[in-house]
Amino acid sequence: MVDSRVVRVTLKDISLKTGYTINTVSRALKNKDDISTQARELIQKTAKEMGYINNSLASSLRSGSTKTIAIIVGDISNPHFAIMVKEIEKSSRKHGYVCLVINTEENSELEEQAINSALGKQVDGIIICPVQKSVDNIEYLKRTGIPFVLLGRRFDRTDFDYVICDDTHGGYLATKHLLDKDHKRILILKAPDYISSARERLAGYLKAMNEYHIEVDNELIQEVGVVSGDSRQVIKKVIEEGIQFTAVVAFNDMMAWEVIYALNRSGYKVPGTIAVVGFDNIQSRFFFPFALTTIANSKSKMSKRAVDVLLKKINDPITHTTFNEVIQTQLIVREST
Amino acid sequence: MVDSRVVRVTLKDISLKTGYTINTVSRALKNKDDISTQARELIQKTAKEMGYINNSLASSLRSGSTKTIAIIVGDISNPHFAIMVKEIEKSSRKHGYVCLVINTEENSELEEQAINSALGKQVDGIIICPVQKSVDNIEYLKRTGIPFVLLGRRFDRTDFDYVICDDTHGGYLATKHLLDKDHKRILILKAPDYISSARERLAGYLKAMNEYHIEVDNELIQEVGVVSGDSRQVIKKVIEEGIQFTAVVAFNDMMAWEVIYALNRSGYKVPGTIAVVGFDNIQSRFFFPFALTTIANSKSKMSKRAVDVLLKKINDPITHTTFNEVIQTQLIVREST
Repeated sequence: MVDSRVVRVTLKDISLKTGYTINTVSRALKNKDDISTQARELIQKTAKEMGYINNSLASSLRSGSTKTIAIIVGDISNPHFAIMVKEIEKSSRKHGYVCLVINTEENSELEEQAINSALGKQVDGIIICPVQKSVDNIEYLKRTGIPFVLLGRRFDRTDFDYVICDDTHGGYLATKHLLDKDHKRILILKAPDYISSARERLAGYLKAMNEYHIEVDNELIQEVGVVSGDSRQVIKKVIEEGIQFTAVVAFNDMMAWEVIYALNRSGYKVPGTIAVVGFDNIQSRFFFPFALTTIANSKSKMSKRAVDVLLKKINDPITHTTFNEVIQTQLIVREST
Repeated sequence: MVDSRVVRVTLKDISLKTGYTINTVSRALKNKDDISTQARELIQKTAKEMGYINNSLASSLRSGSTKTIAIIVGDISNPHFAIMVKEIEKSSRKHGYVCLVINTEENSELEEQAINSALGKQVDGIIICPVQKSVDNIEYLKRTGIPFVLLGRRFDRTDFDYVICDDTHGGYLATKHLLDKDHKRILILKAPDYISSARERLAGYLKAMNEYHIEVDNELIQEVGVVSGDSRQVIKKVIEEGIQFTAVVAFNDMMAWEVIYALNRSGYKVPGTIAVVGFDNIQSRFFFPFALTTIANSKSKMSKRAVDVLLKKINDPITHTTFNEVIQTQLIVREST
């Protein structure tokens, strides 16, 4: 017995079933209006009942457009990225694009694989939050001529399109908020320096400290891996070494949660004894039963803008305009529920 | 001036640059071993420097396989789905597959669009968490002959492949945990009945209540929308109506967080005054600074198994085996940090 599941329904099958010519069937399935509504509806209904699949891959090869965008991010299970991916997907869908999502796990080799997968699938464009351990993968992307936009991170050069948030201002606002509450020993948990947003948030911290004439103690600048989640170990180490601090600025909300978790376990109350500020405002989407003052980076605005910029590039491939966009950040004070 | 970005590099360009024939260039880029290592490396290096894109789309049309899997979920910004997508993506990548992720927002029309997008892109298979408002979309999927696996939800029929967790047992374990602590008035926040996991978790609740000879009060069975996040309103309403309860079983962790948030705001302490149990064990991945007893549904195991089942179907399309897999659930007691 031949299993019907492996036999693909063809235009001919639909033609035989409905009695219309293959040409009429084809035009009806493309929603052309030179066919009567009645015939079109019957053909479309029959096609669906028969399990016909419209092969947009073949037409992609003809048109040169696949109506697909690749989103390449570090870790989709981080709610910050997950929310951005959802927003990009929503916004792309409105323009008729489907999204392919690939994780890099913040690893350059996986980033290269991700880029090759995306290119091999002939996506029309790529939105990427680069790993940044080197610029090689992005330079390769540039050489291929594929439209792409960096999201959330940038390089020290302006010839790549990017949409980021104002990380320096964010780092400044977070630190200033604590300084205004008379904190002087402010611990900053920063991400590795090769990540632009890590450098810029630290610059904002230093700017605020300087503005308030507080000498920066290098012991208060601590690095945390961006995927590993070793904030607990860092907090434990800082406490064990007897480094004094009354407040923490964390690189992102996930780290801030972990910091509060670690401080609680060590007997410190947050916000009672130690104040913590995060970054990303993930709690704008979730109702967590604890307060966290944080920096809002307009995930929705950034995502939409990245899609807009990418579509501009896709629709006008010979443009010489480069988009370097910085979206405003904002302090969200969330002291207690 | 012609912008180089819109001119795609061809095999001929690489041939001219390296001096090798087009045939040699083509074979080198396909990693064939009938070419000297030296030549292969030079050609591959040159191709990369020139920004050559390997068109896997064209070879997909020839081979009939795109090495792409579509993942269709309700809401990728829900950490439960985000973690599953990450696991599926990771597991698929090991087998050389790339993932296309599409959100349905728990809406049947968007689900139909998602399926059509995936089919149009000639994906090799689909992993879908169905909306379930009707079975139409999944029946259509079945008729097309494309391999697919339902993940996390099933229909009352066994001819669709599925991988779910043992939701009935999960609901039972959550409720039993509270009954063992002498709670009798246990409020359950359930998702709509058309969702199989919602029905099954409720069945588990009823089974436990029955086993402990506690009469079920219908006022204690409350429904919450699955995307809307109206748990706060439901808790507020229940309190305003004077319905007495000392414990809550929530459909998932996101709802549980919101329940604790709402209870705190109404002056109830959790776990002090009211006990709450969630579902999904999202805290296995995050260090939240609050405790939540929950049901672990082995997201990683479910995801891997769904990929395995899908690959079996893809690699053996004429198989008549149907996979109906139920992964064990487990109670995770997390009383305090």
